[in-house]
Order: sequence, then structure tokens, then C-alpha cells
Amino acid sequence: MARYGTQYGPDITFLGIPPCDLTDPSTYDDADVVIVGAPFDGGTSHRPGTRFGPQAIRSTDYLPHDGTRPSLALRTDGLRDLRVYDAGDVEMFSGDVLKSLADLRAEVAKVVRAGAIPVILGGDHAIAYADASGVADVLGHGRISMVHFDAHADTGDVDFGSLWGHGQPMRRLIESGALRGDRFLQVGLRGYWPGPQVLQWMAEQRMRSYEMTEIGERGLTTCLTEAFGIATDDCDGVFLSVDIDVCDPGAAPGTGTPEPGGLTARELLDAVRRACLELPVVGVDVVEVSPPYDHADITAALANRVVLEALSAIARRRRDARDGTTWDPRRPLLDDR
Amino acid sequence: MARYGTQYGPDITFLGIPPCDLTDPSTYDDADVVIVGAPFDGGTSHRPGTRFGPQAIRSTDYLPHDGTRPSLALRTDGLRDLRVYDAGDVEMFSGDVLKSLADLRAEVAKVVRAGAIPVILGGDHAIAYADASGVADVLGHGRISMVHFDAHADTGDVDFGSLWGHGQPMRRLIESGALRGDRFLQVGLRGYWPGPQVLQWMAEQRMRSYEMTEIGERGLTTCLTEAFGIATDDCDGVFLSVDIDVCDPGAAPGTGTPEPGGLTARELLDAVRRACLELPVVGVDVVEVSPPYDHADITAALANRVVLEALSAIARRRRDARDGTTWDPRRPLLDDR
Amino acid sequence: MARYGTQYGPDITFLGIPPCDLTDPSTYDDADVVIVGAPFDGGTSHRPGTRFGPQAIRSTDYLPHDGTRPSLALRTDGLRDLRVYDAGDVEMFSGDVLKSLADLRAEVAKVVRAGAIPVILGGDHAIAYADASGVADVLGHGRISMVHFDAHADTGDVDFGSLWGHGQPMRRLIESGALRGDRFLQVGLRGYWPGPQVLQWMAEQRMRSYEMTEIGERGLTTCLTEAFGIATDDCDGVFLSVDIDVCDPGAAPGTGTPEPGGLTARELLDAVRRACLELPVVGVDVVEVSPPYDHADITAALANRVVLEALSAIARRRRDARDGTTWDPRRPLLDDR
Amino acid sequence: MARYGTQYGPDITFLGIPPCDLTDPSTYDDADVVIVGAPFDGGTSHRPGTRFGPQAIRSTDYLPHDGTRPSLALRTDGLRDLRVYDAGDVEMFSGDVLKSLADLRAEVAKVVRAGAIPVILGGDHAIAYADASGVADVLGHGRISMVHFDAHADTGDVDFGSLWGHGQPMRRLIESGALRGDRFLQVGLRGYWPGPQVLQWMAEQRMRSYEMTEIGERGLTTCLTEAFGIATDDCDGVFLSVDIDVCDPGAAPGTGTPEPGGLTARELLDAVRRACLELPVVGVDVVEVSPPYDHADITAALANRVVLEALSAIARRRRDARDGTTWDPRRPLLDDR
Amino acid sequence: MARYGTQYGPDITFLGIPPCDLTDPSTYDDADVVIVGAPFDGGTSHRPGTRFGPQAIRSTDYLPHDGTRPSLALRTDGLRDLRVYDAGDVEMFSGDVLKSLADLRAEVAKVVRAGAIPVILGGDHAIAYADASGVADVLGHGRISMVHFDAHADTGDVDFGSLWGHGQPMRRLIESGALRGDRFLQVGLRGYWPGPQVLQWMAEQRMRSYEMTEIGERGLTTCLTEAFGIATDDCDGVFLSVDIDVCDPGAAPGTGTPEPGGLTARELLDAVRRACLELPVVGVDVVEVSPPYDHADITAALANRVVLEALSAIARRRRDARDGTTWDPRRPLLDDR
Amino acid sequence: MARYGTQYGPDITFLGIPPCDLTDPSTYDDADVVIVGAPFDGGTSHRPGTRFGPQAIRSTDYLPHDGTRPSLALRTDGLRDLRVYDAGDVEMFSGDVLKSLADLRAEVAKVVRAGAIPVILGGDHAIAYADASGVADVLGHGRISMVHFDAHADTGDVDFGSLWGHGQPMRRLIESGALRGDRFLQVGLRGYWPGPQVLQWMAEQRMRSYEMTEIGERGLTTCLTEAFGIATDDCDGVFLSVDIDVCDPGAAPGTGTPEPGGLTARELLDAVRRACLELPVVGVDVVEVSPPYDHADITAALANRVVLEALSAIARRRRDARDGTTWDPRRPLLDDR
Repeated sequence: MARYGTQYGPDITFLGIPPCDLTDPSTYDDADVVIVGAPFDGGTSHRPGTRFGPQAIRSTDYLPHDGTRPSLALRTDGLRDLRVYDAGDVEMFSGDVLKSLADLRAEVAKVVRAGAIPVILGGDHAIAYADASGVADVLGHGRISMVHFDAHADTGDVDFGSLWGHGQPMRRLIESGALRGDRFLQVGLRGYWPGPQVLQWMAEQRMRSYEMTEIGERGLTTCLTEAFGIATDDCDGVFLSVDIDVCDPGAAPGTGTPEPGGLTARELLDAVRRACLELPVVGVDVVEVSPPYDHADITAALANRVVLEALSAIARRRRDARDGTTWDPRRPLLDDR
Repeated sequence: MARYGTQYGPDITFLGIPPCDLTDPSTYDDADVVIVGAPFDGGTSHRPGTRFGPQAIRSTDYLPHDGTRPSLALRTDGLRDLRVYDAGDVEMFSGDVLKSLADLRAEVAKVVRAGAIPVILGGDHAIAYADASGVADVLGHGRISMVHFDAHADTGDVDFGSLWGHGQPMRRLIESGALRGDRFLQVGLRGYWPGPQVLQWMAEQRMRSYEMTEIGERGLTTCLTEAFGIATDDCDGVFLSVDIDVCDPGAAPGTGTPEPGGLTARELLDAVRRACLELPVVGVDVVEVSPPYDHADITAALANRVVLEALSAIARRRRDARDGTTWDPRRPLLDDR
Repeated sequence: MARYGTQYGPDITFLGIPPCDLTDPSTYDDADVVIVGAPFDGGTSHRPGTRFGPQAIRSTDYLPHDGTRPSLALRTDGLRDLRVYDAGDVEMFSGDVLKSLADLRAEVAKVVRAGAIPVILGGDHAIAYADASGVADVLGHGRISMVHFDAHADTGDVDFGSLWGHGQPMRRLIESGALRGDRFLQVGLRGYWPGPQVLQWMAEQRMRSYEMTEIGERGLTTCLTEAFGIATDDCDGVFLSVDIDVCDPGAAPGTGTPEPGGLTARELLDAVRRACLELPVVGVDVVEVSPPYDHADITAALANRVVLEALSAIARRRRDARDGTTWDPRRPLLDDR
Repeated sequence: MARYGTQYGPDITFLGIPPCDLTDPSTYDDADVVIVGAPFDGGTSHRPGTRFGPQAIRSTDYLPHDGTRPSLALRTDGLRDLRVYDAGDVEMFSGDVLKSLADLRAEVAKVVRAGAIPVILGGDHAIAYADASGVADVLGHGRISMVHFDAHADTGDVDFGSLWGHGQPMRRLIESGALRGDRFLQVGLRGYWPGPQVLQWMAEQRMRSYEMTEIGERGLTTCLTEAFGIATDDCDGVFLSVDIDVCDPGAAPGTGTPEPGGLTARELLDAVRRACLELPVVGVDVVEVSPPYDHADITAALANRVVLEALSAIARRRRDARDGTTWDPRRPLLDDR
Repeated sequence: MARYGTQYGPDITFLGIPPCDLTDPSTYDDADVVIVGAPFDGGTSHRPGTRFGPQAIRSTDYLPHDGTRPSLALRTDGLRDLRVYDAGDVEMFSGDVLKSLADLRAEVAKVVRAGAIPVILGGDHAIAYADASGVADVLGHGRISMVHFDAHADTGDVDFGSLWGHGQPMRRLIESGALRGDRFLQVGLRGYWPGPQVLQWMAEQRMRSYEMTEIGERGLTTCLTEAFGIATDDCDGVFLSVDIDVCDPGAAPGTGTPEPGGLTARELLDAVRRACLELPVVGVDVVEVSPPYDHADITAALANRVVLEALSAIARRRRDARDGTTWDPRRPLLDDR
Repeated sequence: MARYGTQYGPDITFLGIPPCDLTDPSTYDDADVVIVGAPFDGGTSHRPGTRFGPQAIRSTDYLPHDGTRPSLALRTDGLRDLRVYDAGDVEMFSGDVLKSLADLRAEVAKVVRAGAIPVILGGDHAIAYADASGVADVLGHGRISMVHFDAHADTGDVDFGSLWGHGQPMRRLIESGALRGDRFLQVGLRGYWPGPQVLQWMAEQRMRSYEMTEIGERGLTTCLTEAFGIATDDCDGVFLSVDIDVCDPGAAPGTGTPEPGGLTARELLDAVRRACLELPVVGVDVVEVSPPYDHADITAALANRVVLEALSAIARRRRDARDGTTWDPRRPLLDDR
């Protein structure tokens, strides 16, 4: 069998879910979700280490690796109520960004073509180009909105002499036509990058970027509501890209380009939950987890929970759609059991 | 003298307070509070290390170890306004959970019998069975409410073939009749454990568990007010059990089963303060501090402050009761000095 | 040339800005701001390491060290819109606090005399005596208010047999007449120090200290507004002293005397921004960053951003004054570009 | 299937070798070697963490987890030239040493009964009682010699009120008759434990213990030759127990009771190689690897190599016996290829 | 000026020596040695981080960064007795190994063309292809011997689908004809890679590889003497490539592929000293220092000393050649001063 | 009582031995040895942290803190066969080197005056001036030899504008006449400091310094024999000063100025043992242990063992003198028990 397994370490799956093999469609043709590892850090402009991200996100959890995770909050089991498989890692040599992105893009497209939602575990954010392009290749260029949690806009042009680093995927996605600039929603930006020229380009694309100051003044809930409105206007699906550095470095130290002043872990988990409950998500990536800079695995644990939160909410959204129910966040945990 | 001292390291006391010897009642018969170390981590289901918790909680402070700590906020000195002794550690071999819990339970009961409040420094949460049972053994089974801060319900049944791990003490306490299920208040739960069957059992016991989603929606203050109301309904005292993992891993990385999305340190300190100001606290434990996973001792420092916050508030509650005064949280620090 | 460079490590400047030499006035006579390193940790009462603070604060950033940092939030470039130089470190032997403080004070005064704002990178908080005295020596004793972010009041009298440690600078500043006690605003105090006697002394000086409980009850915004009102009443300038331990240890573990329950990084950055936008700042220090206790450089990164936030806001304040504009925190990032 | 997998983490095997299931003899009836994880740290007297030892020893290697490891030095592939399976972890609750040791002992005996060599990955050294007893249960009590690399004699009597901690297994093995005291060879002892009474008991058993001073004076090679001579005198097999703390803490920091002044990693690897080349090894354990105290996984990597060295040498010994060849340590790597 | 400086961090030079600019030959035309940073880790097969190697090797030293280092042992000052410049880092995007190696090779050749010895600070070992090719491009393909300290042979063929990773440079150098296989001396090999096929290829090239077993049996001194004899047979110069992982992980934990059982730091320093005293060294690289995995900077400090040892010995060799003197390693430090 | 206890942390004693109070001679008038803490790091030129050295050296041991340590090698109990007390820490403000050294010197002299051997736990090496002066003040200036294990000569003149840092104590001791230069034996020097001028001054004092190259060529045993011969020529006693950085950074990372290429831990322990067995030791200090840079406490553990090795050997020397016996390093551990 051609399954590559986990590139850096033993061949494991996300918390013990069943494996699949992207070279053998029969292994995932009934999938709701397929997890794909993208162990690539050749695109990072500073601290590397995200090549170990997929392995860490898959396995950082103190509970048994038994392929079940019932959400206390959402009352769904994202690993059981959905059919979720883990395809292992795409082989990605960090020294060859072009080949690596092309290979990842093709694998992501396979998943989408099978009718499943790809959940890609990065890897540095350079992979977002492949992730979202792979989805758009199947669902249609220009038909997918992007909801992007990040400290950084990732809309740079050329860095270290390359077009393909982790600070540039969003520009490449818009320039290539894979995604529409005016359906690009960014949440959590802050700091001192990019400069005016790049911001000007972004404005020209009619992107909508929520810097932390605006979020602080208007409230995260208000900003998300507004953003989700734009995201669902004339679109066939939403890609959710979560850069773990959207959180404050205190909550997510294990990352390459930490920018102080970010979201709390609680805020990110709630925002991801809401996105997956309210939006027609067609792809997800969770990126920039760099284990060598982590402490006591807290960043990897957070990313693991971002994935579970997304899966639990997708499962809940489907159940609510099927059953005509609504999730009530104020309902006590032990009510009506 | 039979005093065991500190099991792992030199014989020290909490911030330099006087020692006592639980084999010699004369050394603590005037005590308001007795601190007891429970250096046990044989019950943990994942990362161990809490055997070093008592030592770390006792000594992690940058101020002199001089047995005095005047609280800026509460204007009491929890170590001076109360008579507080440190009994050292109970000898607890981590390889023998049954003997260890029995021994601890007996020592806790001694403290309660002397009319003092036991403050037990864990150790993993398995010790809560001994802690609360030891109190109930003296004050009456079914007469004590539990206010329990934790990411986890700790109501599992059998784990690793045992009934006595750190995920099960709350079930054992209710099953044994030591505590009433409908006076069991849990704050801060989240994540993916336990599953539906255990939740069903909890509901049947009429426990009241505040998951972080409900707390986020209704507000921590509101939830605490409601919980405190239940806790004081037809009860003779309240046991306060603080699992440090109720806080977000960013604030408390040094623990065995960190679950992202928890309380801030500020929220926990305020909640503990309020509990000890408003409730008739008869016992306290602070558990799950695992120094090998800590960084720069921030988790141990937080646990040390949880203890001080509790003692300061107990002292304030007694002073207010005696003097007919009320504490005003809005009063400026330097007012009327 | 007499420039001392960086005492501990290579001779670098803050994020690549131009160097100056305090022995040669021509190198900084047009300066708006001069950065000065104070690599001293002989005054700390507990964990040392702040001698490496200046080096860490200067260089901890994932962006190129190119002397430019356009603020997304404020739309100014604190390093370009102002003329900012880095004078390197003042030679400070940690074993001789008196000589070290005297030397630092003289260098700070030089900067002020040249019409520039000194931004001093500590070092432990003992340096604040030299920092604020050096400013007051030029602008007038009693004419400068102090806005002081800290977990600790730093108003102790004698520690370890000395008057000059990091817990005492604020007392020395008031006693010496350099600063007025009733224009001393402290934000973020908490914990168990100092005791009643010192608090009494502080009250007698008519200092105004916002403990975290008051801040929690009344709101940080309200407290700052009140404090800023006092600070600007009958004064010629404000010195801003930022002890990184004002933040919660989860956000700033790399410090000597971490006190749980502090501000978030976001709150500190916003408060510094507001101080520098609204107040006539004449000097700044950022202290108590201790790299040996940091993890993944997150504390140093935060301090670096505190400096940038201050410079960006000072630049914005000057631009608004010049252009008659006002900064709107609710304005979307990409508006009108 | 009843296979337990890896108790703490995903179900992996040692460097990717095939799994087996101890409840199903057909899965290992042709085995030469079966690897068994013993994730137990309830017996340690100080730093815990060895419960994560099996997982770390299995997976700490920068090479692909492909079930092959050709030894440069020995020109054998310990994972291919032998039939090696990984049985996963025995379920061992650290809070119940008696049940855990009994269960492990039974599993080890199963392996020996199948004609294979058990290689047990600890876990703290308490497991040695189960490991060697399990072998002796099948091959005969008193018929197995012990070669024991360790800083500590592990011949204590009662510790923390228990007979079964990690400082006592060797006494229990001799007292129970499983092993003969005069076929007990200890290498690497040093430091300040045990005291005269225990040493007296050891002398009475006619144990032979090489303290580091004697090793330094006479040479490790000479001591090993002497020890191996005793070990093979009137015995049916040799159990090799390797406590990683026999190495200097600089080479093996990730352990519970580090004693300065030990062997280098090179010396340990050579000694293990020689033992497995020259002795009729019938069982091996590698214990006391505590990942939470490790740095950059160097202790786990060393333990992984101890296992590989043992397997490579066992393979070589068998090949040499079969082919009548002899291994020449002076032969250049690329000779005659 | 076109000088790129330090790619990751401020523009510093090795311990404060003067900078040069490889785009301006006049800045280094009198150089004896030019230091070049190669901050590339796109070629590593496991742990990345060596991109921060050049910065760490340049600056990790507790002495002042003053461009002088008098060797106690050799009585030369490698930074003063030679004209040494630091060219900063070559811009190397880790995501594009081909372009990065080509650019580095061109820069190295510039240095050699100027008559200076290039000392390249890696970076992962993939750069050795560029380093030695750049030298051979000027001095003649096939005219340079290689003395290679490493745990690994680095003669792999294809890894992760690429020819250009850090496990393959030595094969590429021989295949391309840049270096002769029979003038390739490897010291310190050990472990379980490469396999028989690659070893066969190496033997066919007539490489001479000293595995640790042979070194242990014959002695390092003897092996080096033999190797140096081969290296200087019919050659015009020797390239010295030092992979820090030749040392035991206890002495050099901060590296990507640590293999237990290596040289001590003392042995490596003595071996490098001897190589540079006895051989006509024409180029040096020091590679595989990965700061994120280092502890207390001990690996970076060792690499810094490897560079200084090389420079000191080169200076001594030149002085002895000029003055007709000989260095006596037994001479007491304070003799004849 | 005036006892200061432990300056940084709780009041503990070395491994549980009895305390004494230097202000009350009756508490130590029968002492053979008095341990004194010198928690000072104001003299260090680079990494601080040694203020926590005394606390770490006293308590870093996995064995019970019970005031007994029977040496396996020497068959003495250094804590029982000698009367050893712990005087706690001398109050030493790191910001005032002059007062701190004067106070320490006076306390050391008290110990010597009582007929006991002072064992001072540093602190940085600046304290050696006070340590050896305090001894010489009582036993006679010029009558004490120095045996000094260190990577550095510590004979600098002025550093950071001061005469009193940790790089200068040996010069001050000789200049002041407290010690004779020609009875100054240094072992383990290496690296790149001091420069020729200082070496010239050392040669003029007729110091004898063994650099690692000479040690490597002639053997440590030979060098020590020669050095001990000089040390005992016309002297009344020997002061033993052990800077932990004499060991290789791999064995002792937790120190301020690590220099690669040093002794192994085994070599240091053996050398200290031999010094205390063969020489009339009248004072000992163990310095430069910096816990914030340590890993898993291995450096502190080594320093703890250096103290125990010294005490065990002093006890053995006294016993052998009394009983006319001789210690045989080749004797098996269990012989004649």
C-alpha cells in the first residue's frame, strides 16, 4: 500500500481514527472528513519546526487514542458522528516548496473530489495556498470564501527571493483567481506587518481585515457576525484557515512568529465553533504549530482542540440541519440527560 | 518526634509558618487551619509529577519565607490573622493508592476533629476522595457541600482497571455517601470527557456542572452566585476543591491533563476569594500542580496564591463576622490608611 | 569612539535603528527619542537575569532588523516618523548599584538635555530611580508625574541591608524630591507586598495606586482615565515606567518576581498606547525582563512590542497635534487606503 | 483483538516493527524477541515520568520508522535478522504496584514460554522484579544470572512503607529465590546509597558489585570480563538489566535519580554490545528513562540505542554461532564490502 | 551597500571581527579567512533549526565581542594574527535548496578566489556540497581532500524525493567530480545508517570511514594520523567539514539527528586543532547546530570554539612555518612568559 | 535568634544536617566543618543565577534529607563521621560587592577561629577572595596554599570598572598577600582568557597553571601529583576552590561562563576526593552553580556530590590518620563486609 503514514515519526492517526490511503479511493469514498498532514516548514521566515506540527496535533491529548471524542459543549462526537479518516502525511521535502505545494494541492483535491472536507494539519502557512487551491480546483475558482484567523495578513509579495513563503499564500490565492479578494475575511491581525504598500494592495482587493484594535472596540462577536455575513454572500463554501498565532503567545508559544496581544484560547475555540456551526465549511487548515518552541505541549494541545472543535461543530450543524434542532449555549451540561 | 516533614525534599513549611505534628495534638490544638501535604501521583491517568506539588506550592514565592502575607486586596494577613500550622507531608507511596488514601483520610480527620480547617496540597486529584471523606467523617456524611473548580468532572467509574485514580474521586465520594450529589457544584468543565454514560450518571445524582460555554454565556459571576446558593442550602459546611487545570494551560502549564480554553488566573483567584468570603468553608484542597511540566514555576506560584487567597478570605470573613464590617472591592488600596 | 555598545553580546541597536554615542552630542542632537540599555540586575531581590533584558528587548522580533515598523493599528512608523537612535548600554556593574545608578542617571540626563525622550531598557526596576531622576534633573524636580504599571509598589525602604534594590526606587524618587508623591499613579498592583507600614507611608505621600481588584470592579479604562487626569494636573511631563510583571505570568513568565493575576498582554499594550497618545510623555522605561526565565522569548517579544507601541503612539500624538487629526480605534484596517 | 497498544499515546511499535498480541500466541509463536512496554512509575522514590519511557524508547529516532536498522558496527540488522515483535504495553496502573507487577510477570512469562527473549521497556526499576521473575518462572528459579548496569544496587528492604519500590527489586529477586545472589553482577554503582546494613546483606548473598572507583582503577573491560565469567558459571541464561542512570547525568539527564560520575554513553553501548555478544542472554530490560526530565530527547535516544545494540549483538552472536565467524571490532567499516 | 548581514537577527559579525561585503572585493582582498553564514535548514531530514546556527555560532561566548581571542593552548590569536572578516549570511531561502546551494557555492568561490580560506557556518549539512564545490571550483576539481567529522556518512542517494538533503552532500561531491572518493576521510561514524547498499557504494569510491568501534579499539590519535596521511597524499588542500553531531548528544544536544556514543567535546577540539596544525586546510564548515534544541547554548558554544580552535591552529601553523618553531602540547601554560 | 537561614527560599540545611548560628559560637564550637551559603551573583561577568546556588547545592539529592550519607567508595559518612553544621546563608546583597565580601570574610573567619573547616557554597567566584582571606586572616597570610579547579584563571585586574568581579579574586588574593602566588595551583584552564598581559603577571607570581592540553598529554593523575607536591611545600594548610565550570558544559551546563572541553564529572569527583585525602585542607568553596541555566538539576547534583566527596574524604583522611589505615581504591565494594 502506498500510504505514506506520518513523515516524521511512527505511522499514527489523529487520536486513533481509522487510516485511509489517498492512492486508494475505496479507503475514503464514504468519508465526511479526511485529515491530511502537511509536514512542511520550508516556507517559514523565522522559527521553523512546523514540520512536526501534524504529528503533534494528531497525538497531543491526555485521553485514550480511541477515535472518539464526545464534546461536552456541543453534545456531538466529531470523530464518531462523522466518518473521519486520516490519510497520513503528504511527503513534503521542506527544501522544495514548489513540488511540495503542488503535491499537497493534488492530494487535497482528491479529498474534495470524494465529497469530503479536507482538514489539513500544517506545517507553516505557506501550505494554505495548496489547501485552498486544492479545494477551489474542485469546487470552482472564485466560489469559495476564506475565513482566516491570524496575527498576520500573509499577503506579502516576495520574501527571501521567493513568492512562496508563509507570509504570501493569501496573495497568491487571490492573484491566481482561486479565491476572491472581496470574500476574504481576516480576524486577529496586529503588529507591524505588512507595510502600507501591501495594505494598499489588500484594500484594492476589497479584503476585509479585522485588526485587534477594531475587535477590542467593537467586540469579537460583532466582528464575526459581520464577517460571516460577507463570507456567505454569493459563495458555495467557506475555507477556514486557522493560524495558531492568532492567539496570544502566552496561550500559544509554540509557533514561529509570535505576535503579542492576541486572542485567548477560549476566544479562538469559541470562534472556530461558531464558524463551523454557522458557515458551510468545505475545508480547514490549522497551521504554524512549532513543537520545538512549545512548552509542555500546550500549543499542540490547543491545535488539537481547534480540530476537534471544528469537527464537533460540523457534526452538530449536520445534526441540527437533519433534525431541525438548534444548539443552545446557555443550556446546563447535565440538563435533560 | 514523628513528624514526617516534607516527603520529597527538605522539611519546610508553607512560606515559613510554624510546623505541627499530627501525631501530637498539642502542637495544633489551637489551630484555625492546618496545611497537609499529599505528595501522591499514583492516581494520574497521564502526566505524573504532582508528588512534587506540595513542596512547590509551599515554597514558590519570591517574598521572604517569614510566615506573614498581608493581602493588598483583602487587608488581612492569612498567615497571621489565623493560626495556621503546616503538618508536613503524609507519607504516601504512589504505588499503593488504597493505603495512601486511607492514611491521608485519617490525617485529615484529625485536623477537622481539632476544630481546624484542613488545607491539603496535592498531589493528583485522587486525593480529593480522602480529603473530603476525612472532613465528612467528622462533620457528618451528607452534611458537606462541594464546590469544585476543574476542567474535568472526575466522576469516572473504572480507569486502568482501578476505581481510585484521579478521574474518579467525585464519583466515589457520592457513591460512598460522604457527599450528596445534589450539593456538588462544578465550575469550569470543558473538553471531551466524560462521555454520555457518565454524564447520565451525574445528572441522576443531580449534580450541577457549569461547563465553560454556559459560563461564557451567562457570566462567571452569575454562575458562582447560583452555585453558592445551592451549596449553602441545607448544609453544614463547604469543601472547596481546586484543580489547577481549571485555568487555561497558558496560565497553568504545569499540570497533568491540560485542557485548553479555561479560566484566567485572575478569574480563579477572584472566584476562590469569593468562595471563601461567602461560604462556610470547612476544607480546601489544591491539586494537580505538576512541577516537571511547569515553566519558571508559574503554575506553582499560582497554586501558592490560591492557598493565600483562600486563607486571606477566610480571615476576612471571620473579621467581618466579628466586627460587623463588609469588604468593598472598589475601595482604593490607599484609602483611609 | 567611546560608544559602549551592548554590554552583554554584540553591539546591536533596537531593531536596526541608527546608533548614537552619548559621549558625542552630535550623534543625537536631532533625536526625538534615544534608546538606552541598562543591563543591571544587582538590585533584584529574587531571580536575576535582567542584565540580558536590553539585548533581548532590542532583538526579539521575527521581522527584519531594518529600522522600520509601521503600526497596523496607529498607522505610524515609530522608528521612521520619529528620529530614534540607540545609544547602546550604559556600563553597569551589577555588583555596584550606587555607581551604576549614578552613571545611568547622568546618561539619561544627557538625552533629556538634547531635547529627546529617553527610552530605557532594563534591567531590574532599581534603575527607575536613575531613569526618572535623570529626567527630573533636567526638566525640574517635582515637575514630572509618574505613570507606573507594575504588580508591585516598589516603595520599600530597606531590603537586604540596602536602600537601592528593585523594590525601593519609587520611595527614593519621592523622598529625594525628584517626583511628587501625589502625582504618582500606579496600575496593576496585587498580591502580598508591601505591608501595612509601607502602605501607610504611601498613603501619606498621597500616591494613587490601583490594585487589580479595583481595576476589575471599575474597569481598566475608567481607572486609566482617572489616573491620567491626576497625572496631567499641574505637571510638565509624564514618565512612564512599565514593569513587565504587571502582566500575568502566563503572558510574561520571564521576569524575576512573577505575581499571578495580572493584566493580559493585550491590556498592557492598549494601556501603553493610550498613555503615549494622551499624555505628554518625557521618558519611558521597560524593566524586569529576565531572559533566563523566559520561554520561547515571549516575554522579550512583549517588551519589544511595549517599546514599539509607545513609539508608535508618540509618533501618532505628534502627527495628530500637527495635522489636527484624531485617531479612531474603530476604523477598519483597510479603510480609505 | 485484546492488544492493549501503547498505554500513554497512540498504538505504535518499536521503530515500526510488526505488532503482536500477547493474548494470541499465534501472533508471536515464531518470535526471537518480543518487546513489551511497562509504563509504570508508581515505584519511584523521587522523580516520576518513566511511565512515558516505553513510548519514548520506541519512537525516539531520527530515522524512518520502517522496522529495519542495519548496525554499522556489527553488520547485522537487529530488527530484520531476528524476528522481533512489539506486544505494546502491559496495562499497569501506577497506583497499584502489586497488581501491575503480577500482570507484567505473567506477560513476560508468556514470551519466554514461546521461546522468545523478552525485551521490556520501563518504567521504573521496580519492574525488574517482574521481568526477571517472569523469565525464571519458565526457565527455572536459580538458573538465571543477572548482569545489572546501574548507579544503584536496588537492594533496599522497605521504602515509603513498601517492599516494592524501584530501590528494592534486586533484594526481592534474591529473597524469593528467583535469582541466586552469587550470580548477581552489578556494574556502575556509586554515590551514597545503600548504607552499611544493606551492603552487609548484599555481601552475605555473595553478590559482586563493581563500584565506579574499582572500575576506574581496574578498567571497565577487565571488570566486565571478570563479571561475565561469574555470570556464565553454572547458569542457563543471563538477564540483562540496564538502568539508564548508570550513565553520567550529562549523557542521561532524563531519569529519576541521577547520580553524577557515571559511565559515558559510549561505554554503556560497548558494554551492552559485549554482554549480548558474549553471554546467553534470555531477557533484557531498559529502565528509568523519564521523558519529562529529558532534554532534546537525548536520554530516550540513548535507551533506544541500548535496545538496538542489544538486538544487533544478539543477532550477530547467532550468526557467528551459525557461520563459525567472529566479529572483529578493529575491522574498518568499508572493508570487503 | 549590498551586504546582507545576518539573515535571522541583527547584523553582527563573529565575535566582533570586522565585516566585509562579498559584492565588494576591496573589503576582503587582504583576507586570510572569511567567515560566511549559511542559514539554511531546508535540507534536514528531521529536526530543523540550523538556520539559526550562524547567528548562534557567531555570538555564543561569554567574553566581550571585541574581535580578539588569544588561545591559551596555542599562544596565538586566531582573530588577530590572521586577517579575518565576516561576510554575513548568504541569503538562503530554506524552501529552495537548489537556488540556495548555487548562491552559496558562488559566494564561497569568491572567497577562495581572493586567496582566503572560507569558514562557513551552517546550516544543515546539505551546504557542504556548496562549500566544498565552491572551493574546488577555484582550486581544481579532484585536487582537494575532505576530512569529515560526523556521526553520519552523508552519502545517501535520494531522500524525501530529493537529491539535495543533508544526508547526501558527500555523494554529490564525489559523483560530480568535485572531490575524489579516495581522498575522503570520515571520522566518528556510528549507528544504523546508511544501509549496506550505500556502504557498498562508499567502498567502491574507496572512501575511508572510521566508525567509533574502530576508533575505540585503535585510538583516535592513531586513526587521525592514518587519515591525515591519506588526506595529504597527492592533494592541493584539505577541506575540513565538522558536523557537530560527531560529538555525543550529552555534549551537543542542539542538533537535528543526534546519535548516542560520540566523541567528547575535548576530543573534537583536539582533533580539529590537530587537523588545522598539520594539514593544508583550504576551507572549513561547521554545521548542524540547531539552537531550538540546544540547552544553555552549550552546543553553540562548542561550535564557536571549534571555529576558534581552527583559526588559532591555522595561525599557529603559519607562525611555525614562518619562524621555524614547533608547538609543544606538554609545555606548561606559564612557562617562559 | 540571629540566624539568617537561607536567603533565597526556606531555611534549610545541607541535606538535613543540624543548623548552627554564626552569631552564637556555642552552636558550632565542636564543629569539624561548617557549611556557609554565599548567595551572591553581583560579581559575574555574564550569566547570573549563582545566588540560587547555595539553596540548590544544599537540596539537590534524591535521597532523604536525613543528615547521613555513607560513601560507597570511601566507607565513611561525611555527614556523620564529622560534626558538620550548616550556618545558613550570609546576607549578601548582589548590588554591593564590597560590603558582601567583607561580611562573608568575617563569617568565614569565625568558622576557622572555632577550629572548623569552612565549606562555602557559592555564589559566583568573586566570593573566593572572601573565602580564602577569611581563612588566611586566622591561619596566617601567606601560610595557605590554593588548589583551584577552574576553566578560568580568575586573575583579571579590572572588569566592568571594578576590581571585585568573579574574574579577579585570585589576583586580589595574591596582591593582598593573603596567599602566595607560588603556592597557587590551577587545574583545568582552557579557552581564550586571560590574554598575554595577565598571563605574564601570573608567571611573575610563579603560579602553576595546568591547561587542559598539558593535562591531556601528561595525564590528570600526574599533574595532580605534581601540583599537590607544590601545594604542601612549606604551607600550613590548603584551600580548595572548585569552580564547577572546570567540568565540560555537557556535565555542568548550569553555570555562567561555560567553556567547552573540560573535565568529566567522574574526573572532578576523583580529583576532589584525592585532594581531600592527601592534602591538609583548611577550607573549601564550590562556586558558579547557576540553577536558572541548569537542566534537570544535573549541575546542582554534581556540586552537591563535590561537597559530599570532599567531606567523605576528609573523614576518611582523619580515620586513616587515627587508625593507621589506608584506603584502597581497587578493593571491591562488598569485600570483607
